[in-house]
Amino acid sequence: MAKILLEEMAKKPAPWLSGNGPDSAVVLSSRIRLARNISDFPFPPSASSDIRERIIDLMQSAFSRIQNLKKGTFFRSGDIDNLHQMFLAERHLISPQFMIDGGGRGLFIDDKEKISIMLNEEDHIRLQVLSSGMSLHECWDLANKVDDEIGRILQFDYDEEFGFLTACPTNVGTGLRASLLIHLPGLVLTREIDNVINRISKVGLMVRGFYGEGTDVLGNLFQIANQTTLGRTEDEVIDSLTKISAQIIEYERGAQETLMKDAPEQIEDKVWRSYGILMHARVLTSNEVMNLLSALRLGLSLSLIDKFDFRTLNELLIITQPAHLQKYVGREMDTTERDMVRADLIRQRLADFKQA
Amino acid sequence: MAKILLEEMAKKPAPWLSGNGPDSAVVLSSRIRLARNISDFPFPPSASSDIRERIIDLMQSAFSRIQNLKKGTFFRSGDIDNLHQMFLAERHLISPQFMIDGGGRGLFIDDKEKISIMLNEEDHIRLQVLSSGMSLHECWDLANKVDDEIGRILQFDYDEEFGFLTACPTNVGTGLRASLLIHLPGLVLTREIDNVINRISKVGLMVRGFYGEGTDVLGNLFQIANQTTLGRTEDEVIDSLTKISAQIIEYERGAQETLMKDAPEQIEDKVWRSYGILMHARVLTSNEVMNLLSALRLGLSLSLIDKFDFRTLNELLIITQPAHLQKYVGREMDTTERDMVRADLIRQRLADFKQA
Repeated sequence: MAKILLEEMAKKPAPWLSGNGPDSAVVLSSRIRLARNISDFPFPPSASSDIRERIIDLMQSAFSRIQNLKKGTFFRSGDIDNLHQMFLAERHLISPQFMIDGGGRGLFIDDKEKISIMLNEEDHIRLQVLSSGMSLHECWDLANKVDDEIGRILQFDYDEEFGFLTACPTNVGTGLRASLLIHLPGLVLTREIDNVINRISKVGLMVRGFYGEGTDVLGNLFQIANQTTLGRTEDEVIDSLTKISAQIIEYERGAQETLMKDAPEQIEDKVWRSYGILMHARVLTSNEVMNLLSALRLGLSLSLIDKFDFRTLNELLIITQPAHLQKYVGREMDTTERDMVRADLIRQRLADFKQA
Repeated sequence: MAKILLEEMAKKPAPWLSGNGPDSAVVLSSRIRLARNISDFPFPPSASSDIRERIIDLMQSAFSRIQNLKKGTFFRSGDIDNLHQMFLAERHLISPQFMIDGGGRGLFIDDKEKISIMLNEEDHIRLQVLSSGMSLHECWDLANKVDDEIGRILQFDYDEEFGFLTACPTNVGTGLRASLLIHLPGLVLTREIDNVINRISKVGLMVRGFYGEGTDVLGNLFQIANQTTLGRTEDEVIDSLTKISAQIIEYERGAQETLMKDAPEQIEDKVWRSYGILMHARVLTSNEVMNLLSALRLGLSLSLIDKFDFRTLNELLIITQPAHLQKYVGREMDTTERDMVRADLIRQRLADFKQA
């Protein structure tokens, strides 16, 4: 059952990268994450192996009674090997270290890959809803519903004054992290990005790379999320992030206009060179691909090129990641081989689209 | 008349870059140059304007009586504007500064662009024969014939002990410079090139870039020539250069084999990326083009790609130079515009070949 879901997932791009949804030229995806813990159990970092198993059992039983979690797959540590852990992390369905750090963990992923719930990560429950484009409210509605349903069955650790209690104090309160994956090539190329990040930080938001905390900014992809979980309601947090991201999208559009006014040839050249390299290279690292795809995305936004669509770019972004590539080929490969297979796959996908 | 020849020349690639001739995958062209001066006249640098004109008149009259110089065009300072000077220098028919440094100069170019004779450059006569591929002996035979014919009409400055006298002592003796334009990407990529250059220098040869003395090595193109003009006969010089270049060609082939054994993917990648960039870029500098064409030439040598031939590469090498590009478009352009037109032209030529 667990295996079957993973095989099915590998056949298609992650739904949250479908390239649909409002403002999807700039906002790749929206994400809501809620941290919850069950009363009367120690937080996972200090829970014994037995208690961790008991928590997972409790959850599995609870989830089976929840409408929104009826269609999906429940995994336990041991169900998922190294390659599939990487695969799920690349799809942003688990944190990179989740299954690797010892046992006693559980994971639920719904059939549409919209909802994923990590059990016994830092908190008992890390509920996540992911969706394509600028769709924070939609994600929040679904997360809120699932959260309510779980809360009806199990008693959350909740303090009248502080709100939801969590293993790490930075999550206490709403336990909410709302985040957006945003593509900002214009602001990077015009060197306005540092200013924008500074301004974002001052209003209580944080900015990170594609793969979360501590990762480099690759392909001009930024994750923007709320920093504080205390003192503001969920709606306030989401409204504020929505409003600020609308502003960032405006800045980005302005930057792209400036680029096209000041250096149209250079931008066009950058876009077409990137396409030429992706269409012809025989060896491509994952990082290089992310940067080249960024140029293609910019070209598409500016209507400088029409040989692919946002969906194709998003798909390439994910299927060229190491674990996805190995799932695609059906075996483990070293970096050298991956770089060659990656180049072949990209060439093929871009050529397929061109002919289609 | 002078103008007509230039217009005709601009329509076709330089014949010495036709990509024919022995070893033309490595040796682009062969060149023989003879320095001569006429007795009883001061060397050009110290000759008055009147004397320089008299020398040109003498030559023009002499050339008209020489069979091998019957078909061609005679130019005088003033016949050729700045753009056409650059154009001729790009075609290696004159030295870059030749027409620019004041007046009192003459130039003969035969219809096949095989023979060019600069008058009142450093010496009264600089006779050059250029040909495609490894063809030094052929060039020397023709140069020797023309030299003899001129010598029958005019009295050369000749010393029984030293040989032909020249303005600069480095040319005294035979006045001969034999040189080859060689493409050595394998030796550059394997980092053996410095060793090879050292060895070449020790046997009295010199190595320079594409555009002669003091120019950078671009596109892995090297000019190899004899350094000494004293104490060795012309045949000895040419035999020695031929023998050493055969050895260099062997080294280059060995280096290319090593590359294909040690890093075939990287080489294939380099070739195809270069092709992708040339096929898609919108802005290309002349220097970048030379380096990209070098990768394509390597790819063709190694049968890694078949989307063009050596003739096309040689043609692109020359028609993408600044003056050629301006001749092609029919007007003067600044660097920015040239870089765009260059990219357009290359894309078009490579696509034309692909479809042909």
